[in-house]
Amino acid sequence: MSHKVLAVNAGSSSLKFQLFEMPGDVVLASGIVERIGINDGIFTIKFNGKKVSDTLDIPNHSVAVELVLKGLVDNNILTDLSEVVAVGHRVVHGGENFKGSVFASEENIAVVEDLADLAPLHNPANLVGYHAFKEALPKATHTLSFDTAFHQTMKPEVYVYPLPYEYYTDLNVRRYGMHGISHQYVSNRLSELEGKGPEGFNVITLHLGNGASISAVKDGVCINTSMGFTPLAGIMMGTRTGDVDPAIVTYLMRKLDKTAEEIIDIFNKKSGMLGVSGLSSDARDIENAIAEGNERAILTRDIYAQRVLQVVGGYALQLGHVDAIAFTAGVGENDGGIREAVLELLGPGLNIQFDKELNAKTRGKEIKISTSESDVAVWVVPTNEELVIATDAYSIHNSK
Amino acid sequence: MSHKVLAVNAGSSSLKFQLFEMPGDVVLASGIVERIGINDGIFTIKFNGKKVSDTLDIPNHSVAVELVLKGLVDNNILTDLSEVVAVGHRVVHGGENFKGSVFASEENIAVVEDLADLAPLHNPANLVGYHAFKEALPKATHTLSFDTAFHQTMKPEVYVYPLPYEYYTDLNVRRYGMHGISHQYVSNRLSELEGKGPEGFNVITLHLGNGASISAVKDGVCINTSMGFTPLAGIMMGTRTGDVDPAIVTYLMRKLDKTAEEIIDIFNKKSGMLGVSGLSSDARDIENAIAEGNERAILTRDIYAQRVLQVVGGYALQLGHVDAIAFTAGVGENDGGIREAVLELLGPGLNIQFDKELNAKTRGKEIKISTSESDVAVWVVPTNEELVIATDAYSIHNSK
Repeated sequence: MSHKVLAVNAGSSSLKFQLFEMPGDVVLASGIVERIGINDGIFTIKFNGKKVSDTLDIPNHSVAVELVLKGLVDNNILTDLSEVVAVGHRVVHGGENFKGSVFASEENIAVVEDLADLAPLHNPANLVGYHAFKEALPKATHTLSFDTAFHQTMKPEVYVYPLPYEYYTDLNVRRYGMHGISHQYVSNRLSELEGKGPEGFNVITLHLGNGASISAVKDGVCINTSMGFTPLAGIMMGTRTGDVDPAIVTYLMRKLDKTAEEIIDIFNKKSGMLGVSGLSSDARDIENAIAEGNERAILTRDIYAQRVLQVVGGYALQLGHVDAIAFTAGVGENDGGIREAVLELLGPGLNIQFDKELNAKTRGKEIKISTSESDVAVWVVPTNEELVIATDAYSIHNSK
Repeated sequence: MSHKVLAVNAGSSSLKFQLFEMPGDVVLASGIVERIGINDGIFTIKFNGKKVSDTLDIPNHSVAVELVLKGLVDNNILTDLSEVVAVGHRVVHGGENFKGSVFASEENIAVVEDLADLAPLHNPANLVGYHAFKEALPKATHTLSFDTAFHQTMKPEVYVYPLPYEYYTDLNVRRYGMHGISHQYVSNRLSELEGKGPEGFNVITLHLGNGASISAVKDGVCINTSMGFTPLAGIMMGTRTGDVDPAIVTYLMRKLDKTAEEIIDIFNKKSGMLGVSGLSSDARDIENAIAEGNERAILTRDIYAQRVLQVVGGYALQLGHVDAIAFTAGVGENDGGIREAVLELLGPGLNIQFDKELNAKTRGKEIKISTSESDVAVWVVPTNEELVIATDAYSIHNSK
């Protein structure tokens, strides 16, 4: 017998969803509610190759959830809400408490609430979405999938910072990492695609979106990741610096007469591709400017690739050898220029050979771009976090 | 004809010196004046295997310089001060202005003064030492050697941060690196010791002291280094964090009710080995605690080695292949335990084979610790910054 399972990703003013038929991983519908609680809310639903958008007032998440469920029924994707047996909710921060997806018990929800201190913008919004769906679908199994959980296998020497140790034990300051659901999906998928492992299969996954992180995965288990205590850390991103000398914070405070919060805000929102190029945080705009010979845009891509190189080099050495790497997320799936710049840098040291033409024309498609002479298999793998969330939700539902 | 050349390193309350006979690089004497302007000043001079110390009042650097010169004459190391043809002064920060050692012209001194903003604790102290020696030895050729100069060959994609670009152009925020004189000496020395290059010779130098940095050197030229805008960046050190998620600054400000300056001060002075171990910033104390099974000390060494691994991995990939690596400075020259922990991590990925017993007993000696099966030559090379400073001073003197 088949069941319907929803995967949900609730932000402070948005709600993304995807409805699966399980088992079988068939996507029946997907969509997004945007501008919740602002004005001119937008509800978009996609099914059977159709896409329907509505602009209307969406005062809160409960109304957004009603819209989604009504949309699914009105369009005959669901005949009755009771068909939805499970709802998997994405939660950004699971701290050290969650090493995998869990049933949304009252106890677990309370822990997620407590972790808001580590993700003040995200965890509370995730819970608002959860409560709205829980109210609308009280009989379904609700589960929680965490962006941090996949990284919980890192060893202390990787996640403890060289800070006074009590900041870890008492204040929870450590490397957590993000995008874990994506890194998990892509590394598992690489293993399937290459017909290997996970045992003895060493993988580096490059989740390059507006936020971006890299993970090292050995035997199916994450051993390192580039985001840190917060999503500011690691490689350069659309608007974020990634790792920089922390003493720059106080230097800029003095020079610009700004507070530390304002400087960190600049590190988060005005830096990265946007900051270096002075043009845009969108890699497509950088590519277009490069095509026109814009020097700052070229520098932007060179810094980006160089910073990816440094992290991949560290992970390659930590892994000992690398079997496969994958590009995923908005930039990784669609930007052949960034992929080429990265692969040109990685090539000599890792003996990577790739098909430049194939790479240049690949957008959002699961495809191997390395050639048979390459020591490392290089793939573009569109990420599918919703599938992981729905699969875990269905599995927890069935095990109840 | 032989000449005497002084190499000088002036701090805010100290003055180190070494007197060479040139050409030939013969060290005639060395020493240090400590606690200048405090109380109970100490003047120590070493020559002919002897070491003489005096405790006395040393109110300022002029008095310290008089002491040094009088000590050299009184002990018959110099018969007349005019024998000193050149004095090389170490200067911490040369910004983007100095790519090598230079004659201490009025113009160059003015530039060093202007750069005080980038090294407020060091450049002014370096200049106090310069002025005191210039007054005492007005006829000698005075030169300036910079800790940043060797790193000036890095490319923009390596030294420009993913920050708003005007912070580089207008506020001089970029990666400068430190310990350049040491990295230069050790990388050149490796080239001599291995009878290679510098062309086509790829080297990673690990300057591991209380401050610590790693450099990648290709064809004799620095292509990357781990310190950044300030010496806080890069790998874990005795009391410094090295690179950490910059957002930790504002989180800790809120949690600890401290200012940003106070947090950066903790990052500089209470973190690193001291912070993680809770014991000491001195690697010898960490080693002793490890021998007693202290878990925090073991974690300290593991984090230290892991952070070295990440940087070396990045540089190995940037270099394409690695011919040789060298350990230098206090920890690198003397701490077999740290070297072993690092080499155990680097070994599988770089195919490094080393003689554990030889490594364990090597302290402060120039010696190759890798075996003939190793793909990478591994050396311990005691650094000799004074020789570089004196050689450059003598060379500038002769070219005048």
